[in-house]
Amino acid sequence: MFDNSDRTEIGAMGEFGLIQHLSQHFEVKNSKTFKGIGDDCAVIDCGDHFGLLTTDLLLEGVHFDLSFHPLKHLGYKAISVAVSDIYAMNGMADQVVVGLGLSNRFSLEAVEELYAGMQIACEHFGVDLVGGDTTTSQSGLVISMSAYGRVAKDKIVYRGGAQVGDLLVVSGDLGGAYMGLQILEREKRVFLEVPTMQPDLEQYDYIVGRQLKAEARKDVIELLKILDVKPTSMIDVSDGVASELHHMGKASGCGFHVYEEKLPIDPQTIDTALTFDLNPSIVALNGGEDYELLFTVGQEDYEKIKTMPDFTVIGYATDVTSKNMLRTKSDNQFEIKAQGWPDSQKD
Amino acid sequence: MFDNSDRTEIGAMGEFGLIQHLSQHFEVKNSKTFKGIGDDCAVIDCGDHFGLLTTDLLLEGVHFDLSFHPLKHLGYKAISVAVSDIYAMNGMADQVVVGLGLSNRFSLEAVEELYAGMQIACEHFGVDLVGGDTTTSQSGLVISMSAYGRVAKDKIVYRGGAQVGDLLVVSGDLGGAYMGLQILEREKRVFLEVPTMQPDLEQYDYIVGRQLKAEARKDVIELLKILDVKPTSMIDVSDGVASELHHMGKASGCGFHVYEEKLPIDPQTIDTALTFDLNPSIVALNGGEDYELLFTVGQEDYEKIKTMPDFTVIGYATDVTSKNMLRTKSDNQFEIKAQGWPDSQKD
Repeated sequence: MFDNSDRTEIGAMGEFGLIQHLSQHFEVKNSKTFKGIGDDCAVIDCGDHFGLLTTDLLLEGVHFDLSFHPLKHLGYKAISVAVSDIYAMNGMADQVVVGLGLSNRFSLEAVEELYAGMQIACEHFGVDLVGGDTTTSQSGLVISMSAYGRVAKDKIVYRGGAQVGDLLVVSGDLGGAYMGLQILEREKRVFLEVPTMQPDLEQYDYIVGRQLKAEARKDVIELLKILDVKPTSMIDVSDGVASELHHMGKASGCGFHVYEEKLPIDPQTIDTALTFDLNPSIVALNGGEDYELLFTVGQEDYEKIKTMPDFTVIGYATDVTSKNMLRTKSDNQFEIKAQGWPDSQKD
Repeated sequence: MFDNSDRTEIGAMGEFGLIQHLSQHFEVKNSKTFKGIGDDCAVIDCGDHFGLLTTDLLLEGVHFDLSFHPLKHLGYKAISVAVSDIYAMNGMADQVVVGLGLSNRFSLEAVEELYAGMQIACEHFGVDLVGGDTTTSQSGLVISMSAYGRVAKDKIVYRGGAQVGDLLVVSGDLGGAYMGLQILEREKRVFLEVPTMQPDLEQYDYIVGRQLKAEARKDVIELLKILDVKPTSMIDVSDGVASELHHMGKASGCGFHVYEEKLPIDPQTIDTALTFDLNPSIVALNGGEDYELLFTVGQEDYEKIKTMPDFTVIGYATDVTSKNMLRTKSDNQFEIKAQGWPDSQKD
């Protein structure tokens, strides 16, 4: 079945190349499909509003490590990851369905923990878990989540609406989830070498929490509504800002100019990055899994957002198509290169 | 994390018990959720119509074996399995999203084969593949599919609408997919023992095709519309008729009486079952993966369906709640027991 004489390695294409290559043959044929592949969600024409549909996979050993990922947190994160894509379209998530592949090392109590986390997340985000598929798995834990939501037709925001001169804004702070993962993996290595050693995670509570319990930014969508600001483009930060800028720029036909000094980075992220001999700004740009919202707004909206403590203007859209530049604190310029799976395992 | 002192094995509960146990904590809270867990699809109130949402997981080693499951067929089957749940609500599928977990033994050409099968299925069923998530997998191939569809509010059919006296009808024939799997597994064993032996599948083409290339019955929904017949209850045959009767009876508050002599079984299925020392009727009732539609209609609709060659009336609904009986050809009666995962690996 696998003809090695004519074999192209997937890794050679990268995630974005693969998806683009595979999806090129799929034309939208159904009149109800308003927008297919290419944004955080598919957009379905439901008459007086748009329906939003998205799916994500979380696989053991790739997206999580059960030796340090508590199941309740993992359940919460699964829902968060799913609804985050709905928020990235300026919509509200209403329903989720979950597929679970469980190996027999899972007890009922373990599955209950996973579901308890999902339930807390469903209540927090105001979504209903409305169905699923549970099956045995011969390998690790498999979690698939699909979310459905809705948005008024005149409120939908795509990746591709940024205009030259628009301000580039990000919610919250960046790089914490990635540094949290580095800490957890380090403590795991220490534990495997010296099993009597107790992990000391207290001083890393913020970044470890950012990794273990991702928080989709429903509140940002609610705040934007209150402020009467409709972003011109938006995406959620799952793979890292560098990747997301690549997507937004490509879809919008623009580039972005980012100021290093503006990148919002928590002190704990900075300290930990330096301990690991990493540049905090590079961590913030490439880290991924922050599940913040990255968006652009017209300059006329600056007055409305400038005093919001959770929003940071980090740059602006330029006319250099698909080329994203970082202006460093020392006033140098570097091109921001997008990473994607398989270089990173984030998704 | 796994506290073995207070451990309940999932296998002890069975699939249905597990799902019921876990979903009991999830209340529907969102006004847009018309119906949550408990049918082939979740039902979303979209104003002038209902939206239908369903998800399925296909895992390597559980649902398919890549040593005999061609990737193109598998892609077709994945879409078929997803849309089948939409048809079981008397709806039409419009969109699917697919999550793929790929190990590095997959070449680009292999993934293209999988997608080619999906594309053929999408065209056949008139659905758009509108999004997905592609990631690395450290174990086998993971395919998650979610489908979205719609149905007029007055046309939706649930599992729970069967009335005592209604006729029990099934489309197509039963047990073929299961016997096809037995053949494929037998030929694999032979091949592993004697690698020079070429598998002889020609005489089993029908049942092998039933296993490898599942066909969701969109045509049945279209035919019911033409006949102006709205079933009182409906479900798709994924786990086997015995399981589906259990679900329908429980949801409807009735039982079913099935006539063995009426069970539609292809001669190839019968011959193969007998070769394997299996009772063809038991195979038809428990086989699973046929993806036919099992439904009930009021007796007044009998005239409309009786001449349809693809529909077979196999029994009727009784007032014995949740108890399903088989009347054998020799005029004995046996209770039909529902099987579910983990006894069977079908889903």
